[in-house]
Amino acid sequence: MLKLHTYFRSSASYRVRIALQLKGLTFESIGVHLLREGGAQHSPDYAALNPTRLVPTLQDGEHTVGQSLAILEYLEETHPTPALLPPDAPGRARVRALALTIACEIHPLNNLRVLQYLTQELKIDEAAKTAWYRHWITLGFTALESLLASSPETGTFCHGHTPTQADCCLVPQVANARRFDIPLDAFPCIVRIDAACQALDAFAQARPELQPDAA
Amino acid sequence: MLKLHTYFRSSASYRVRIALQLKGLTFESIGVHLLREGGAQHSPDYAALNPTRLVPTLQDGEHTVGQSLAILEYLEETHPTPALLPPDAPGRARVRALALTIACEIHPLNNLRVLQYLTQELKIDEAAKTAWYRHWITLGFTALESLLASSPETGTFCHGHTPTQADCCLVPQVANARRFDIPLDAFPCIVRIDAACQALDAFAQARPELQPDAA
Repeated sequence: MLKLHTYFRSSASYRVRIALQLKGLTFESIGVHLLREGGAQHSPDYAALNPTRLVPTLQDGEHTVGQSLAILEYLEETHPTPALLPPDAPGRARVRALALTIACEIHPLNNLRVLQYLTQELKIDEAAKTAWYRHWITLGFTALESLLASSPETGTFCHGHTPTQADCCLVPQVANARRFDIPLDAFPCIVRIDAACQALDAFAQARPELQPDAA
Repeated sequence: MLKLHTYFRSSASYRVRIALQLKGLTFESIGVHLLREGGAQHSPDYAALNPTRLVPTLQDGEHTVGQSLAILEYLEETHPTPALLPPDAPGRARVRALALTIACEIHPLNNLRVLQYLTQELKIDEAAKTAWYRHWITLGFTALESLLASSPETGTFCHGHTPTQADCCLVPQVANARRFDIPLDAFPCIVRIDAACQALDAFAQARPELQPDAA
């Protein structure tokens, strides 16, 4: 059985949980608590499994895959149905670019270890940390909203009328934005797509609060 | 002909230039100067083409693709030979994870706009900015070195004996590290692979200083 090393609040883990649910794949969930006792991601066992010391990590028999987007692609290649990428190269490029806009331009800047560096090394206060967090989400969502609202390829979901890798990345990022009370009024297309996703059972099952390690 | 909107010093642009050279694809290079006159990436024309206001952007006839890794995948699908991904799903996952470790965990934190936020909004001094820059490269390279040095799949290049997407990402990141005088003694595998890449004409042709917009 697939094993997913995950943290319930990690949005990178959340992306993979959604993809696994959409593809109807059962998996063993192994909690890696990022905050407890200095962070379980720094344990020798986990660091040996994934030297980046980040979650998630997927284990598929003898194969170990880190990096959430690499895991999404791996699942796409090993379990192609239902597809989370469109069939045409330009469509696939659009979906990947949307996913990467979240995964490269928003999420890495608001990651736990970056927030820790800002407060511990640069000694910024809580207000400056919140402003930093909001800045990168707002900047990224402004670009995403434009990409989504301006394209005839946007449908019920980010690309057409079935969920793709882009939706797997969008929903966890919206959840982060809501957790930090970031106003989303300027992003109607993002809010609409998030609601359409949340109505699907696969997205609901992947929610942080429903995970075994959320207790 | 393919058109690449690029900035000579952008390491994301550099990744795509390497892939285009490896695949023997001719392209028109359109310079987007990130520093001149407040940044050409913020011009209305460029923001309309790519709302993230980041380089690179590839134009292939009517299709526009942003995000360097989405562009690498698009080129792989539209121009499969020579392949920059291995044929097997676990190998492809490994290459993508290596590429994403650079593209998600190192590069976004040291991007121009992030450094600008640190100095303009958080008012950190030059020494703190340099320490920030070095911190994320050193942390990321430590993980990468471990991933590369520990795997029998590492060869002359990051994966086997022909260049892949991982090498397209590694070389520009090493160039950034060298530009900021970051010691690389702790990363012998990274240094060895970078040297193997630099010996290839495709990598040499993609170097920042040889680009038309470097003048």
